[in-house]
Amino acid sequence: MQAEIITIGDEILIGQIVDSNSAFISKELNKIGVAVYQITSVQDDRSHILDALEVAGKRSSIVILTGGLGPTKDDITKHTLCQFFNDELVQDDTVLQHIEEIFKKYISTPISDLNRKQALVPAKATVLHNANGTAPGLWMKKGKTAFISLPGVPFEMKNLMKNEVLPKIIKEYKRPHIFHKTIMTYGLGESAIANKIEEWENNLPSFIKFAYLPNLGRVRLRLTAKGEDREFLQATINIEVKKLYPLIGDIIVGEEEDESIENQVGKYLTQKQMTLATAESFTGGKIAQQITTIPGASSYFKGSVVSYATETKIKVLNVPEDLVKKHSVVSEEVAIAMAENVKKILGTDFSIATTGNAGPTKGDSDAEVGTTYIAISTPEHTFAQKFNMGNHRERIVQKSVNKAFELLLKEILKF
Amino acid sequence: MQAEIITIGDEILIGQIVDSNSAFISKELNKIGVAVYQITSVQDDRSHILDALEVAGKRSSIVILTGGLGPTKDDITKHTLCQFFNDELVQDDTVLQHIEEIFKKYISTPISDLNRKQALVPAKATVLHNANGTAPGLWMKKGKTAFISLPGVPFEMKNLMKNEVLPKIIKEYKRPHIFHKTIMTYGLGESAIANKIEEWENNLPSFIKFAYLPNLGRVRLRLTAKGEDREFLQATINIEVKKLYPLIGDIIVGEEEDESIENQVGKYLTQKQMTLATAESFTGGKIAQQITTIPGASSYFKGSVVSYATETKIKVLNVPEDLVKKHSVVSEEVAIAMAENVKKILGTDFSIATTGNAGPTKGDSDAEVGTTYIAISTPEHTFAQKFNMGNHRERIVQKSVNKAFELLLKEILKF
Repeated sequence: MQAEIITIGDEILIGQIVDSNSAFISKELNKIGVAVYQITSVQDDRSHILDALEVAGKRSSIVILTGGLGPTKDDITKHTLCQFFNDELVQDDTVLQHIEEIFKKYISTPISDLNRKQALVPAKATVLHNANGTAPGLWMKKGKTAFISLPGVPFEMKNLMKNEVLPKIIKEYKRPHIFHKTIMTYGLGESAIANKIEEWENNLPSFIKFAYLPNLGRVRLRLTAKGEDREFLQATINIEVKKLYPLIGDIIVGEEEDESIENQVGKYLTQKQMTLATAESFTGGKIAQQITTIPGASSYFKGSVVSYATETKIKVLNVPEDLVKKHSVVSEEVAIAMAENVKKILGTDFSIATTGNAGPTKGDSDAEVGTTYIAISTPEHTFAQKFNMGNHRERIVQKSVNKAFELLLKEILKF
Repeated sequence: MQAEIITIGDEILIGQIVDSNSAFISKELNKIGVAVYQITSVQDDRSHILDALEVAGKRSSIVILTGGLGPTKDDITKHTLCQFFNDELVQDDTVLQHIEEIFKKYISTPISDLNRKQALVPAKATVLHNANGTAPGLWMKKGKTAFISLPGVPFEMKNLMKNEVLPKIIKEYKRPHIFHKTIMTYGLGESAIANKIEEWENNLPSFIKFAYLPNLGRVRLRLTAKGEDREFLQATINIEVKKLYPLIGDIIVGEEEDESIENQVGKYLTQKQMTLATAESFTGGKIAQQITTIPGASSYFKGSVVSYATETKIKVLNVPEDLVKKHSVVSEEVAIAMAENVKKILGTDFSIATTGNAGPTKGDSDAEVGTTYIAISTPEHTFAQKFNMGNHRERIVQKSVNKAFELLLKEILKF
């Protein structure tokens, strides 16, 4: 049982947008036991799309296409599907009614013929209802292969996947189980980890695939098993994961991919009914932003003072001007004062503070680009650590954000 | 002159990571006149990689591979290249020396045999120096096609592209010019725009390709021309763009893709020597974070108070408790107070404030999920607007951030 994804649109091939749709579709298919063999991004070009459909259809039982269903001239997916299936476009009255309703409810401009044309669908297609947009999804069959065409707008595509495509696949296909488990580690590089677990890795059962995914100071370790018996797969993987703890337990911060570190911070703070605030300088609000992507964050996150300018640290965070003058704004002392003061001002149990220089120029301080201090304040104490995060602005920020969560989580777990 | 990209790694096909490398590579290739025909993501599987190399090599003169060059067992790209080229791995002493230096300088764990093995390269390959990592890039030729293998770590790949791959392509290949221009619009949907510019679009010269890229309240319009005479292409596109202004000038906020709206805000604030602060509730620091991705933001951005909890609005932003009680925390009055007070506290010329409910539950207020207020304060006045941003958490936040920048930019341009 194998699927392929074809994304249609020049914007991907000229690098104007990143293809995040395919990652979402792949993840959802994997969850229901459908492996994705290949992802192919092709141009808004009829013959290129036809080639891709032909090749994918020969290999895989499900081919999901995204993009090219909009109302404008550059959208050619429906016409190309008609050519591939030797079919013609006909009006679907239910879709037309839905389009008219959307315009009435949400859109201030009047409905036009271009919009009405979105109700044209290939005669042989099963229409999939797009609750969030005007371009319907399409499900067409050639031989044993299902070709499923979805709009490229992520919000519409995701909803169609969840409410139409996945239920239909589950109903119509027998699928094996695919079980992934991901272990998040912080603090060691991939080759150092590989050395520590070499024997364990060599002795893994052959139906378990193992991979290292390094990224900015964290390495994720992924185990994947595929087979008929879900419980057996899951049990075997859990046994193997347990064996990892005596080997690298000190660097493991969590299991399961969805358990991001900010998720864990949220989970434990909620459990312990404790609260958090941040005072961010060079991270510019990125820590707060990552915290608040988690639904329910308002129960433990009180807020952040993004004190990008030195004067903001003094005025809002009450960092003494003398302290800044004496130690420089990028210093352990200022980081600690920021953490303690934001905790006091917002009345929280924990706080994170960052001060540093993300470059490209030195800004308000004399610190070298890449020098950063991260301070953590807990109900019991406050400390700051100094890091050299390299010389690449984006990386300096993201590595520091990762490190801040890592330091914080360790402290939270002590309470 | 056409290229293809092959990304290697199960993590993409199971949806664990989004393939952002391909977008970067495509964009860089386009800039030097190399069109990307297709992007293909394949599994960590030898026969699948071989198939992809075979197919791409027949179509395109440049094939760029990313991923699978790490030190661990799941990394098989080098072995597969040896099979494809009927070649064998030999040690490259310069690479070995570089790996040893990296370990001495940056890595606390001792160097291991796994790390040293990264100095093994196919005998027929030209080695490309990876200044930021231990896995070298490889350039190999089969017939007329160059196969270029790069590590999957974005930071290492980007540096290799810029310093090794692009200069070598420029030196060795004659290339046409590809000229893109993107017009950013805010406030109208794609079909409404298409209706307004229908005649213009129908009369575009045939060598100009035109596309609509809708996304959360903004539509980007892209014109692309390809040919030998760069100046002619550029002039023709500029003439066509000029004709757009009488038709839709009221919704155009900028030209060129790299000119993001936060870039423009930064550019104009720097020019006018004016400053900005933000007070963010449900946007959770995302506005501050987008502002501070721009190098040099510290010259105009003083900071943000991320007042996620109502008490933070009261304590730090001095929003009167009575005002919150009387109008609710999600209200025009509170948004305006937040904007005025953060401007006063941080001493800036402009400010943005947001308050609203991004869901999934009602949080501190009685406002419906999706109800948001955005306030802008300028040296002359303060106003707030109410929006209904739908019911999807991420979208509510991103649409509001986009809208806030749009409202702010309009005000900045008046000074």
